[in-house]
Amino acid sequence: MTLQKFTIADAAMERTPGTEAEIYTGNLVDERQGGPITIGYGRYAPQQTLEETMAVHDVMIVLAGRLSVSTPDVAVEAGPGEIVYMPKGEAVTIRSHEEGATTAYVTYPHWRSARE
Amino acid sequence: MTLQKFTIADAAMERTPGTEAEIYTGNLVDERQGGPITIGYGRYAPQQTLEETMAVHDVMIVLAGRLSVSTPDVAVEAGPGEIVYMPKGEAVTIRSHEEGATTAYVTYPHWRSARE
Repeated sequence: MTLQKFTIADAAMERTPGTEAEIYTGNLVDERQGGPITIGYGRYAPQQTLEETMAVHDVMIVLAGRLSVSTPDVAVEAGPGEIVYMPKGEAVTIRSHEEGATTAYVTYPHWRSARE
Repeated sequence: MTLQKFTIADAAMERTPGTEAEIYTGNLVDERQGGPITIGYGRYAPQQTLEETMAVHDVMIVLAGRLSVSTPDVAVEAGPGEIVYMPKGEAVTIRSHEEGATTAYVTYPHWRSARE
């Protein structure tokens, strides 16, 4: 593997598997390149909700908009430049608000492989 | 480990070990928590240069400012919302420009342990 730079225009956004919500993910680096981590961009339409038990460690950096993320024990809200860390095993609910949200994410190991 | 949210104010910024450049890093999650990845924020003063052979896989998300990153084979420039992936083993040169830069980073495995 070599040095790479990505912008959101590089990501082929697809509806996140396993949800009916308007939440889109676009992997830029994943199991197909043979490295250990997945890198991508995410896009949340306004007022969407995703419930998920984390199959991988997931770091989400909010680039625009705002997201609320909660577990049975903790609730946080993140805006531009803020980071949300969702460790493997956590049962999280992610909610977007009226402005939607754009994120960058890094997962270890690969989230798509972990779901199959 | 549990769900966590971070802002740059949470990071205790320290000069990056092994450089005289005004480049600061602040880990938020690392080997001390027992997980597999390191998460942090970085800050580059204007006109700084860092040369490094990557000991780990490093994903850098530019939050503000601009960075040029090059290897003997590839040169990229990244601004706000863009991602630079520096795989383990690559010999990279990172340069900031007149406005400096702020980044978020995720490494696998832990960069600090890998350097010791």
